[in-house]
Amino acid sequence: MTEPTSGHRSTSEYGRLLAENQRYTEAFDRSALTAAPLSGLIILTCMDARLDVEEALGLRTGDAHVIRNAGGLATDDAIRSIAVSQHLLGTDEIVVIEHTGCALHGADADALRDRFSRSLGLDLAAIEPEPDLGQFPDLEANLRAQVERIRSHPLLRPVPVHGLIFDVANGRLTEVV
Amino acid sequence: MTEPTSGHRSTSEYGRLLAENQRYTEAFDRSALTAAPLSGLIILTCMDARLDVEEALGLRTGDAHVIRNAGGLATDDAIRSIAVSQHLLGTDEIVVIEHTGCALHGADADALRDRFSRSLGLDLAAIEPEPDLGQFPDLEANLRAQVERIRSHPLLRPVPVHGLIFDVANGRLTEVV
Repeated sequence: MTEPTSGHRSTSEYGRLLAENQRYTEAFDRSALTAAPLSGLIILTCMDARLDVEEALGLRTGDAHVIRNAGGLATDDAIRSIAVSQHLLGTDEIVVIEHTGCALHGADADALRDRFSRSLGLDLAAIEPEPDLGQFPDLEANLRAQVERIRSHPLLRPVPVHGLIFDVANGRLTEVV
Repeated sequence: MTEPTSGHRSTSEYGRLLAENQRYTEAFDRSALTAAPLSGLIILTCMDARLDVEEALGLRTGDAHVIRNAGGLATDDAIRSIAVSQHLLGTDEIVVIEHTGCALHGADADALRDRFSRSLGLDLAAIEPEPDLGQFPDLEANLRAQVERIRSHPLLRPVPVHGLIFDVANGRLTEVV
């Protein structure tokens, strides 16, 4: 294995990833897969560490495109990714998953701005335009809004779009829309 | 299990997800995890179906934030997600992973526009502003550019940022930066 060349410190966590990947490589048997997902599914969900998408949904390597960001939001960038998936790689169904305990759920805009500003050492309100961090007041309403945005977006094809909530306390998915 | 209420057809693939999640729930033992990733790592990578992030990197549920989009690009939305991860949930190291065989690598802009337009049944060039699909000519240069954007972004803290390429033919990660 080569040593990191980034010029930054190499932590034990990062080193562990490299060692784990070496083991993964030795057992690798997915060389026949192509870029087109076998299931035709796109999963759009939050970056949350408690949601292992493949494990929680019983997906295997090669099955689905997985798009993740803070909140599991249908941002412009998520729409770009869905469009690439649909138009270049033929996927035909979308599953949007948000989750309980999301840091963006119910976050107060002023409190968020203060935490960011303290962490960064600069006043977030002084940045033009002030970044939208994606916080939302109601989980189910937010999920419905993401599904609706995807269903009505002019860059996307009309395919089934499902909206579910993942409960981080017990791993269960509940269908909302 | 409840039946889908979306009003769309329910495919066998979507039904399989729900059944697999039922099994997952029965064995769930991660209820003590919090939103803060145990490893302090953020993984930014492509949505590609051939990359099972947790499996390829030996990560377990709760270890890391995972951000994914078409290409594994440090878009404004990825920067937002990284910022939320750092400032609200305390992560302190970033791993950017692009991969061989990416549909956006080497794609010709005109050919992409034609494929999108045919798939959508409308002329993409007529949309204002015409969407940037994220295609790039050189994999390694593109990876370096994403790492550089993260390292120099004013909304982010100065933490180690690594850039690696995942080979879809053998599962191997190669460090680039």
